[in-house]
Amino acid sequence: MLQLHRNAISGNCYKVELLLHRLARPVELIDVTFGQPESEAQRAAVKSLSTIGRIPTLVLDDGRVLTESNAILCYLAEGTPYVPADAFDRAQVLRWMFFEQNLHEPHIATRRFVMTQGDPSKVSADLLEIWLERGTDALGVMERHLSEHDWFGPAGYSIADIALYAYTHVADQGGYDLAPFPALRAWLERFAAQPGHRAMG
Amino acid sequence: MLQLHRNAISGNCYKVELLLHRLARPVELIDVTFGQPESEAQRAAVKSLSTIGRIPTLVLDDGRVLTESNAILCYLAEGTPYVPADAFDRAQVLRWMFFEQNLHEPHIATRRFVMTQGDPSKVSADLLEIWLERGTDALGVMERHLSEHDWFGPAGYSIADIALYAYTHVADQGGYDLAPFPALRAWLERFAAQPGHRAMG
Repeated sequence: MLQLHRNAISGNCYKVELLLHRLARPVELIDVTFGQPESEAQRAAVKSLSTIGRIPTLVLDDGRVLTESNAILCYLAEGTPYVPADAFDRAQVLRWMFFEQNLHEPHIATRRFVMTQGDPSKVSADLLEIWLERGTDALGVMERHLSEHDWFGPAGYSIADIALYAYTHVADQGGYDLAPFPALRAWLERFAAQPGHRAMG
Repeated sequence: MLQLHRNAISGNCYKVELLLHRLARPVELIDVTFGQPESEAQRAAVKSLSTIGRIPTLVLDDGRVLTESNAILCYLAEGTPYVPADAFDRAQVLRWMFFEQNLHEPHIATRRFVMTQGDPSKVSADLLEIWLERGTDALGVMERHLSEHDWFGPAGYSIADIALYAYTHVADQGGYDLAPFPALRAWLERFAAQPGHRAMG
């Protein structure tokens, strides 16, 4: 069976869990906790699996290992409706997934982590402000797209939507205000209303 | 003919230009400059093409538009030796490309830009230090991989190598010291020695 080293509060892990759920693929979830006595052993186990030693880490039935949430989504989605077969359409999906890892996750996920799990007083006010500005810019890019499209996938709900949903739907926990983004809020509701949805956690 | 909106100092643009050169695909390069009188008109032209309005922006023969350097690489590399046909191997290439956009480019490219084109005194010392630490961590991850492999592609030189080369080979301009990374330095030399290489600029 597939094994996924994950944490319940990680949006990057949630992406993979949600797609596996929708694909009805059984998976053994192996929790990696933060700041618990057992954390060091768990982290050492993850580090032994790959060069990067971070979660999510997916171990295939044959023992081969994959890392990077969005690369794992691409692998699992091969040949399914969650990724387009056409090369240009697939590049559009990848476009949004690279956008997510470059301009969205580094600000929105990081600020949420500090605000909910870390100690904001240990992070400079400048940095918290930069994350807020840049994350809000990323939400604005999404809003402009969603003003004209229902989904980030050219043909509908896709792994690009899963990738962007993961941290957007909890962006408020990082101090982001979604009120100015009505198309984005409608997309969040549309996403969660899909049959086969599974909440984070 | 393909049109690429680009800038000569952008590693993200260089990625696309290098792959097009290796594929012998003709392209019209349209320069987008920074801080020049004509910049605003150039930037408006790029903004009119896509939701994100950033470079590189590739316009196909039929007028369709692609953004995000690594998504463009995936599109152009389809069916070529620069991306593996096998799904797992392709996921390994994508893994490094997402790593590049999430943990490498935001620190190394950003710090280089500030040090060479911007005004470092306008950026907090904390932020410059965080970029230095995290970028150096990313170089360490690359070093560990290259200590056991010649390339980031499972079968050799790939679009993952192109993606990572772009900002690594100019990381010194951002204040990064490559001396502690011998396998990485050997890979940079191996990369630049490939037939059909083209330098940045």
